[in-house]
Amino acid sequence: MKRREFIKNAGIGVIASSSIAAPAIVHANTGIKWKMVTTWPKNFPVLGTGANELAKLITQMSGGRIKVKVYGAKELIPAFEVFDAVSRGTAQIGHGSAYYWKGKIEEAQFFSTVPYGMNGQEMTSWLYYGGGMQLWEETYKPFGVIPLAAGNTNVQMAGWFNKTINSVKDLQGLKMRIPGLGGEVLKRAGGTPVNLPGGELFTALKTGAIDATEWVGPYNDMAFGLHKAAKYYYYPGWHEPGTTLEAIINKKAYAALPKDLQAIVSNACKVVNQDMSTEFTAKNGVALETLVNKFHVDVKRLPDDVLAKLKTLSHEVVQELAGKNTNAKKIYASYSKFYKQVRAWDDISEKIYYNIR
Amino acid sequence: MKRREFIKNAGIGVIASSSIAAPAIVHANTGIKWKMVTTWPKNFPVLGTGANELAKLITQMSGGRIKVKVYGAKELIPAFEVFDAVSRGTAQIGHGSAYYWKGKIEEAQFFSTVPYGMNGQEMTSWLYYGGGMQLWEETYKPFGVIPLAAGNTNVQMAGWFNKTINSVKDLQGLKMRIPGLGGEVLKRAGGTPVNLPGGELFTALKTGAIDATEWVGPYNDMAFGLHKAAKYYYYPGWHEPGTTLEAIINKKAYAALPKDLQAIVSNACKVVNQDMSTEFTAKNGVALETLVNKFHVDVKRLPDDVLAKLKTLSHEVVQELAGKNTNAKKIYASYSKFYKQVRAWDDISEKIYYNIR
Repeated sequence: MKRREFIKNAGIGVIASSSIAAPAIVHANTGIKWKMVTTWPKNFPVLGTGANELAKLITQMSGGRIKVKVYGAKELIPAFEVFDAVSRGTAQIGHGSAYYWKGKIEEAQFFSTVPYGMNGQEMTSWLYYGGGMQLWEETYKPFGVIPLAAGNTNVQMAGWFNKTINSVKDLQGLKMRIPGLGGEVLKRAGGTPVNLPGGELFTALKTGAIDATEWVGPYNDMAFGLHKAAKYYYYPGWHEPGTTLEAIINKKAYAALPKDLQAIVSNACKVVNQDMSTEFTAKNGVALETLVNKFHVDVKRLPDDVLAKLKTLSHEVVQELAGKNTNAKKIYASYSKFYKQVRAWDDISEKIYYNIR
Repeated sequence: MKRREFIKNAGIGVIASSSIAAPAIVHANTGIKWKMVTTWPKNFPVLGTGANELAKLITQMSGGRIKVKVYGAKELIPAFEVFDAVSRGTAQIGHGSAYYWKGKIEEAQFFSTVPYGMNGQEMTSWLYYGGGMQLWEETYKPFGVIPLAAGNTNVQMAGWFNKTINSVKDLQGLKMRIPGLGGEVLKRAGGTPVNLPGGELFTALKTGAIDATEWVGPYNDMAFGLHKAAKYYYYPGWHEPGTTLEAIINKKAYAALPKDLQAIVSNACKVVNQDMSTEFTAKNGVALETLVNKFHVDVKRLPDDVLAKLKTLSHEVVQELAGKNTNAKKIYASYSKFYKQVRAWDDISEKIYYNIR
C-alpha cells in the first residue's frame, strides 16, 4: 500500500467519528492540548483507529494532563502535509509512515519498508535493539521532528489481479496500481505501474482501467470491496514485507513536557506499535477466512520465477536508494548488517518452525 | 526452558545489582511502594533485566508516584512462591511465566506456551485480539491475581546434544533435561526426560550425566557456556515455540490505584512484552553469529521423521491437557480456533515470505 494517494480522496471508509475517550481521572490539569494530524481518514480500520488509540492512551496515562485531539486527513491539513505541520508546530504530533516523506527525505523509506526487506518483527528489533531508532532520529533532527515506531502492517498481500501471473512474461505490460519502490521494481520487470487513490481502486479494477492493484491485506482490502472487483488474490506481499507506521512529534513540544509525560508519550507509541501489529494479525486471519469461505476468493501464489525476478530487481532498486546520499548509505549499512544477522537466526527459529509445525 | 528448577540454584548468572533508576521527576508523591518478586535471578539477561525495565517504566511514567523495588528469586521468597506471594499481597506485582503455576492451575500452561503451539506474534495476537486475555483473567480471578503479558522468548532452540539424532530410534533412552509438556512428549517417544536446575546443566552435560538439554536460545544459552559442554546445537524449539512471560498483579493493590496509574501499570507491561520479544530477536541474532563464527558450533536440524513423531505426540499431550477440566476445555477451544485461523493467514504471509525472500 501507499496510502498517500488514497488519502487525497478521503471520503471512502470514513465512519462517523467518536475520537477520544474522556480521561479516567483529571487531576493536576496542566492544560496541555495537542493536535494529532494523520495521513489516514478518520477512524479508518486499524490505521486510523490505531491513531485514535494512541491519543487515548496518552490522555489516560497522563490522567488528562495532555489531551490529544485527532484529525483525519484533510480535516486540518492534507495528508501530504503532516510532516511539515509537525515540523512547523502547527500540530504537536502526527501519525503516518516514513515513506510518505520520500519527496523530502528519500532515505526515510528504510524506516517504513523496502521490497524484500525485513518483516515486522525484524523491523521493530532493528529499530529498538539494532541502532535503527538512533538513525531515524538523526534523519529527522534537521526538521525539529522526533520519530517513533507506532504500528506495523506485517507482511502485506501482493494484491488483486484480473489476469493470471504464470511467468515473468505475464508481467509485461501489466497495468498495476503499485506506487513507490514496488512500482519501480514492476516497471523494471516490464510492467506499467500506476498511481491511483485508494478510493478509486474498486472502480479502476472493475472497469478494466487497471489489471491489478495492491493495497494492504485481507482486513483492509475487504473493507474496500476489492474481492468484488478482481478474480485473483495473489500472495506474498514482496513489496511491503513489514511496513512500520510512525508517530512524529514536534521537538519543542516534546521538550516542553515534564519527564514523566515524555515517558508516557513515547511509551504510548510503543504500545500502539505492538497493538496495531497484533490487531492486523488477528483481523487478517478472520477476514481471510471470510474471503475464502463466504466469498470464494481464488487465493493464488506468485510463481517462483516471478518472485525470483522481482527479488533481483528489488535488490537493484534498494541498492540505488542506498546510494542516494551519505545518510542513506549509513542507514543501509546498519539495516543490511542487522538483516543478515537476524535472517540467520530466523532461518532456524521462526522460519523453520512455520515450515515444520 | 523451564526456569523454576534453575531458580532454585540461583547463584549462576547474577550480576552485582543496580536495580531501579531514579525517577526523572518526583512530583505529587503519593508514596506508593510496590514490591516486585520474580522467578529470575536478579539481572538475568533479558528475563531479569526485562523485569527491571518494567519497574523502571512504571516509576518513570508515574513521575515517581509508584516506586517498584525488584527482588530476584530467593531474595524475598523462593521462585516457586511468586504466584502465592502476589495472591496474598506480600508482593504487589510478580514477573515469571504462567506454566510455573501448573501445580496449582494446570491449564495456565496455555498462557505460556505448548509444544507445537502458536509462536510469539500469534500468542500476543490471541491474547490481545482473540479473547485470550479475558480467559487468562478469569483463570486467575479466584486467586485475586490479575495477569498481563510481559515478554516473549519467541521460538526457542531444541537444545544442546552430545548424541546425534538421525531418526526416531535415537530418541530411545535419550537422557535429556526437558521439563513440563515437552518432557512428557519426549517420554512418550521413548526418551528419559529429567529435571535439573539450569545452573547444573553445564556440569551434567560435561560429565555425561545427561545426553542433552534444552534451555532458551543462543543469547541465554551462551551465557551458561553450554557450547563448551555439548557437541551439537539442534533446532527448532518445537516444545516452546513462543513462550509468553507474565506480570501478575495483586487485585486489591491494583484496584487501590487511581485510573491513570492503573493505565500506566498495564501499559508498561505491554511495552515490556514487545521490548523483551524484540530484544531476544536482536540478541539471538548476534549470539548465533558468535556461536557459529567464533566457537564453531555445529548447528543441526532435527530430522523430519523425528519432528513428525514429536508433533503427533505433542498433539496427544496438549489434547490431554485440554481435557483436564472445564476451564482447560474452554481455553483450548479459544486457542485452537484462533490458531487455525491465524495459521491460514501466516501461511500466505509470514511463512511464505520467509521462504521466498
